[in-house]
Amino acid sequence: MSDIKKVVLAYSGGLDTSVIAKWITETYNCEVVTFTADLGQGEEVEPARAKAQALGIKEIYIDDLREEFVRDFVFPMFRANAIYEGEYLLGTSIARPLISKRLIEIANETGADAIAHGATGKGNDQVRFELGAYALKPGVQVIAPWREWDLTSRESLMAYCDQHGIEVEKKKGKKSPYSMDANLLHISYEGDILEDPWSEPEEDMWLWSVSPENAPDVATYLEIEYVKGDIVALNGEKMSPATVLEYLNKVGGENGIGRVDIVENRYVGMKARGCYETPGGTIMMRAHRAIESITLDREVAHLKDSLMPKYAELIYNGYWWSPERRMLQSMIDESQEFVNGTVKVKLYKGNVSVVGRKSDDTLFDESIATFEDDGGSYDQKDAEGFIKLNSLRLRLAALKGRSPLDRE
Amino acid sequence: MSDIKKVVLAYSGGLDTSVIAKWITETYNCEVVTFTADLGQGEEVEPARAKAQALGIKEIYIDDLREEFVRDFVFPMFRANAIYEGEYLLGTSIARPLISKRLIEIANETGADAIAHGATGKGNDQVRFELGAYALKPGVQVIAPWREWDLTSRESLMAYCDQHGIEVEKKKGKKSPYSMDANLLHISYEGDILEDPWSEPEEDMWLWSVSPENAPDVATYLEIEYVKGDIVALNGEKMSPATVLEYLNKVGGENGIGRVDIVENRYVGMKARGCYETPGGTIMMRAHRAIESITLDREVAHLKDSLMPKYAELIYNGYWWSPERRMLQSMIDESQEFVNGTVKVKLYKGNVSVVGRKSDDTLFDESIATFEDDGGSYDQKDAEGFIKLNSLRLRLAALKGRSPLDRE
Amino acid sequence: MSDIKKVVLAYSGGLDTSVIAKWITETYNCEVVTFTADLGQGEEVEPARAKAQALGIKEIYIDDLREEFVRDFVFPMFRANAIYEGEYLLGTSIARPLISKRLIEIANETGADAIAHGATGKGNDQVRFELGAYALKPGVQVIAPWREWDLTSRESLMAYCDQHGIEVEKKKGKKSPYSMDANLLHISYEGDILEDPWSEPEEDMWLWSVSPENAPDVATYLEIEYVKGDIVALNGEKMSPATVLEYLNKVGGENGIGRVDIVENRYVGMKARGCYETPGGTIMMRAHRAIESITLDREVAHLKDSLMPKYAELIYNGYWWSPERRMLQSMIDESQEFVNGTVKVKLYKGNVSVVGRKSDDTLFDESIATFEDDGGSYDQKDAEGFIKLNSLRLRLAALKGRSPLDRE
Amino acid sequence: MSDIKKVVLAYSGGLDTSVIAKWITETYNCEVVTFTADLGQGEEVEPARAKAQALGIKEIYIDDLREEFVRDFVFPMFRANAIYEGEYLLGTSIARPLISKRLIEIANETGADAIAHGATGKGNDQVRFELGAYALKPGVQVIAPWREWDLTSRESLMAYCDQHGIEVEKKKGKKSPYSMDANLLHISYEGDILEDPWSEPEEDMWLWSVSPENAPDVATYLEIEYVKGDIVALNGEKMSPATVLEYLNKVGGENGIGRVDIVENRYVGMKARGCYETPGGTIMMRAHRAIESITLDREVAHLKDSLMPKYAELIYNGYWWSPERRMLQSMIDESQEFVNGTVKVKLYKGNVSVVGRKSDDTLFDESIATFEDDGGSYDQKDAEGFIKLNSLRLRLAALKGRSPLDRE
Repeated sequence: MSDIKKVVLAYSGGLDTSVIAKWITETYNCEVVTFTADLGQGEEVEPARAKAQALGIKEIYIDDLREEFVRDFVFPMFRANAIYEGEYLLGTSIARPLISKRLIEIANETGADAIAHGATGKGNDQVRFELGAYALKPGVQVIAPWREWDLTSRESLMAYCDQHGIEVEKKKGKKSPYSMDANLLHISYEGDILEDPWSEPEEDMWLWSVSPENAPDVATYLEIEYVKGDIVALNGEKMSPATVLEYLNKVGGENGIGRVDIVENRYVGMKARGCYETPGGTIMMRAHRAIESITLDREVAHLKDSLMPKYAELIYNGYWWSPERRMLQSMIDESQEFVNGTVKVKLYKGNVSVVGRKSDDTLFDESIATFEDDGGSYDQKDAEGFIKLNSLRLRLAALKGRSPLDRE
Repeated sequence: MSDIKKVVLAYSGGLDTSVIAKWITETYNCEVVTFTADLGQGEEVEPARAKAQALGIKEIYIDDLREEFVRDFVFPMFRANAIYEGEYLLGTSIARPLISKRLIEIANETGADAIAHGATGKGNDQVRFELGAYALKPGVQVIAPWREWDLTSRESLMAYCDQHGIEVEKKKGKKSPYSMDANLLHISYEGDILEDPWSEPEEDMWLWSVSPENAPDVATYLEIEYVKGDIVALNGEKMSPATVLEYLNKVGGENGIGRVDIVENRYVGMKARGCYETPGGTIMMRAHRAIESITLDREVAHLKDSLMPKYAELIYNGYWWSPERRMLQSMIDESQEFVNGTVKVKLYKGNVSVVGRKSDDTLFDESIATFEDDGGSYDQKDAEGFIKLNSLRLRLAALKGRSPLDRE
Repeated sequence: MSDIKKVVLAYSGGLDTSVIAKWITETYNCEVVTFTADLGQGEEVEPARAKAQALGIKEIYIDDLREEFVRDFVFPMFRANAIYEGEYLLGTSIARPLISKRLIEIANETGADAIAHGATGKGNDQVRFELGAYALKPGVQVIAPWREWDLTSRESLMAYCDQHGIEVEKKKGKKSPYSMDANLLHISYEGDILEDPWSEPEEDMWLWSVSPENAPDVATYLEIEYVKGDIVALNGEKMSPATVLEYLNKVGGENGIGRVDIVENRYVGMKARGCYETPGGTIMMRAHRAIESITLDREVAHLKDSLMPKYAELIYNGYWWSPERRMLQSMIDESQEFVNGTVKVKLYKGNVSVVGRKSDDTLFDESIATFEDDGGSYDQKDAEGFIKLNSLRLRLAALKGRSPLDRE
Repeated sequence: MSDIKKVVLAYSGGLDTSVIAKWITETYNCEVVTFTADLGQGEEVEPARAKAQALGIKEIYIDDLREEFVRDFVFPMFRANAIYEGEYLLGTSIARPLISKRLIEIANETGADAIAHGATGKGNDQVRFELGAYALKPGVQVIAPWREWDLTSRESLMAYCDQHGIEVEKKKGKKSPYSMDANLLHISYEGDILEDPWSEPEEDMWLWSVSPENAPDVATYLEIEYVKGDIVALNGEKMSPATVLEYLNKVGGENGIGRVDIVENRYVGMKARGCYETPGGTIMMRAHRAIESITLDREVAHLKDSLMPKYAELIYNGYWWSPERRMLQSMIDESQEFVNGTVKVKLYKGNVSVVGRKSDDTLFDESIATFEDDGGSYDQKDAEGFIKLNSLRLRLAALKGRSPLDRE
């Protein structure tokens, strides 16, 4: 413990990480470097500078990572159609590896030998931060105050602030009772009444989207253009990755899209209730599947589907920087070569409906698929041989007494 | 060809299968037994009797298979959370194996040596019917007129009716331009303007559900009770499987739930556009995942998720009666032992939102999951060892120069 | 720590676990119950009684678990053809869950609140023992002295024996420098010169088998009879499960069969070198695949193969008593219904060659497979349709410019 | 049929394909181009030129494809450790896509509109040839005489030769009764007494290897050097891919290595008995796994293992030129970046034993793995937290009455 000289802290500027900054300085008798990132969480990051200075921090990093976040993390993940446990779009999970990377890069730049974060000992985020850090800098040390200290109640935190002259901001209005995390991809809610899985969340919990009930009575149509599996334009207008997601969040949130309320399985072994708003991501997921539906080969699509749960699990569990994620990614990226074209979606009161898709690289062949005369491009008689041989093993088994009718 | 004595025909009572009945009788010079099933398609099946009689059929089977369909086919499939290609709930696919089974049972009862169906040579249904038939009765012969005859246009069919005195019913109103299939689980639409994947279907195509726009402005809440993964009661009222699905279709359809518009990959190798209404099934899928979310072990849930695409593909491709489907089913059924409890859903203008789940067999442990003091039931310090060992291989690799930062 | 009243210790009667018995008694000031199992390791277990008594132990359990071990653990695992990392037949891994089960059963019988074992903190066995114990009795406490004490060298252990009057047996002859584990399925070697993966083990390390060089110059033939995937007779003689494995070990060892020398990946994150002798298991693996080759459906076999690595990993990592292993097992067991028949193997100087297989449940159909005239049971023309439709997606893709020749 | 102008025929120079050349010329009234490849089958290919000329062929292609075969097909496949159904090293399967590619390239060069081959309608090879051809040139036509003609007996073939002046070579000695195929990777045997899976093949069937009984009494040691998963040198001597495989075949064959006798599942739906000699491939398989064992990350290795059966199935079934094989290959190739180093194997009477492996990129860390003092690089106490959290879900389940002891 005593040999830590300098720590890079993931610093939000909020109360908890301010206390942590001070507590580390005192407990470890070492320098603290703060790192604050704009990942599109919707709060200003610049104010963190003055707060860090007030804590006596000398090396202060404040980065706008929004484009990198969407381009190098969100987009690659959406190429895989990743969903955890059938529902969760991995909004928090996908931001952690980028934070880990910057923490380690800053540690390397500043000569720090440790990193620190404000995640608790019960959650997934500690795992994600630390697996990333260890993968990128194996000798780094990790300080996780919530696993170490005895400031386990709000009261003790407040008392600590008092003792150490840490200014406690008075938020206007009622403080949210929920534990929240936000970035360009989503905002999450945990705790309070959500700890009972039978309780429906109250309407005022949701911050990013209107309810379907309050969404406009007229649908919004949107054309989404893809190149190699990534969105490059909306309604014909070219946009950068972060701009795409900002736009989709806006239009999605206005139309009541992207709320999810689930019980999920954490990597540390417990079940937890979480509510999520992912307006843009929800649109992206549907649209990406739609563009793939006309441009991907069937077996490629099915292979992707069969590996998707593994890929999503890796990201959820914090293994973004692992060689197995890299290996899966290389396969997924290879599959996206022809995932080009345009999807038209209709947004209406919580619904995202795909109503059209087209592509120069489409594999949909109207002349084959048609119910009308196809001019001989498909010989229906081939189907007989196809079925005969596909059933051969079943017929041979039935001849040996294994017909399901015999086995019932 | 000439050695067929008797054929069991899957007979809807409609024009096409009436022509087929006559055509087989003449072409194969053999007896035809008709089989008409009520699978909940929403049309009377009794009228098929008179029509068959008019064609000179002597052995006529008309069965109400609704309960068997939902209990032995739909419910087992939903235990697996089966979705094909991320969107399709397999409404047509799951009805085919039951029809195959009855065709073969009737063939065995009546001493028929062949079965016949009215599916085309381009679709999946021929495969599903025939794979099932061969698996259940390996020596059976199959007559698939659409692959054999030259009545390939509406005109030639009409001419055939004329020549053979087959009465053509004049439908009231406009005939739907779509090729449709319906049973208790869904109704499907193909063909016509859907053959262009960029065209949005017109509102009047959809028969089972109102549009979200036309759904009530007030949400409907519903409590769904599960025993071993199957629904046994709705809003506290015990119901049979078919009654459950009828009820869910009704309330789902009223709330604009369950429309899907996709391009899918057929087993015979082409892409096809299909639109589906699956109101009850859409509710069942969300609710089943929700009850599993609190009652299934994490690794069991993930194993199910990783095998689901394979299971769905088997059903889509027509392998219900295969030993590999049976094998997967035994695993899935084993997993459902504790999938008991109640899910509360909110239905509103196309949205199915899970707002509560509870179970005597819940694995959600509020005392562990809480942000509040857990009284020592979880030792946060354990997380450090967990992370340290899970990262060991990553750290060792990074020490050998394989840090992702080195590899970029 | 202080609240442990009684501990059940997995006790071999050897030096290490004798020290552990004493150390626990002193350190935890609690009673120790010893449990010694005959799993076919080849050493007498009765002597453990006197040794335990000499240590002052009052409750002493000595069980012959050989039949249960083979019947309920080894045989179910071989139904799956489980191999870890392509080479390791899981000989140590599969014994641990049975020991965990007995430890917990004895804890329940004797009112103990803890279990203890002599496995180190670097290995897999600690994980296997403890995951099993926790799964079977969630509140149990675990004492793992090697993770806790400071007796980390042979010298300190000896000094401890001296101080506490523990008799140290003088083994005749040279003590093996390897860390070993044995049961009816295998014997393993780790440590010493094996810690360099480039060193070839010396011939005198191997205890159970002769080298291929020293095996007989004449082959041994053996007929192995299966019922539902398990061996029930050898050379026509019915035998109990443990007797089967004893016999196969004997004849396998005499013929130089079953040595493996690998570097494997431990669950705790490091690579380790291990050498194994599994004479009987090696024969069983080949023979089981051979009987499956004529009795299993192709897709069932392939599904088993695709899940085998997962199943093997679960057992290696210690998850025998998990619901996901149970789930996989139910699927595997379902697949074995028709795995009946006889396999003939030839054993010669390290080689196990399958030279014949037959079964009343064979799916091999000579009349279909023959190069000679098959009398029409297979219509070669069906192959054309089969190929045409299986290639349809590839042809459509090539028409769109995706021929691999275009993409190079 | 009548519109075929020119056909490229896979021509061995043997009787069957000579008859085919003539039969196509007559039946289709079209030109035939012959293509004969040296894939290392061990027979001269130049004599095929005179035979083709005697048949009146004007365009004759004879290619030495040995290096391309090993470099671009065999080696990539071995990177995946591909084995079909646990036993078969895919020797025939992997040669077919190269032949398809050359057939199509030659068709493109010569303006041919069809290809032809001499594979039967019951086997896998027809599928492999034709899937490849269609994937590479979607409009190509395929002539498969064995599915079309009535020359179904040896007698009728001979009569055809007589009538058409095709010279029938008198082989010296007894003609083998087996259907055989050979290339640098293996030689295969089917038919005759092998059609009874209970018959042991006679010793004189095997052509490439001595029996273990007749192999030398002294072991041969060999050092195999890998770069990125491919062999680049043997015993320190750099060699080209084909030279590597030739050498390994020689030394493997001399030591009785690589015989396999199996019943396998063909893609067309039947089971078939096959015997194979793959001396070099058998050594390569063991050695590649060994070099991976020290250089691959655990999870990468396990992911590879879990996808291997799928990859092997694709190659067996003839989908080398499919996008899903390409996708898997990109993942496998990505995994081989650090698969560098040297493996030492011992070859002795049918056994391939790995006795050493070393690499500059090894992930084996003796200082961590050691039973001796590791100087603190691994903290054994971390294991407790690791186990505690990995068991958390199991403990919570047991607390809810799901302990396996409760469920038995």
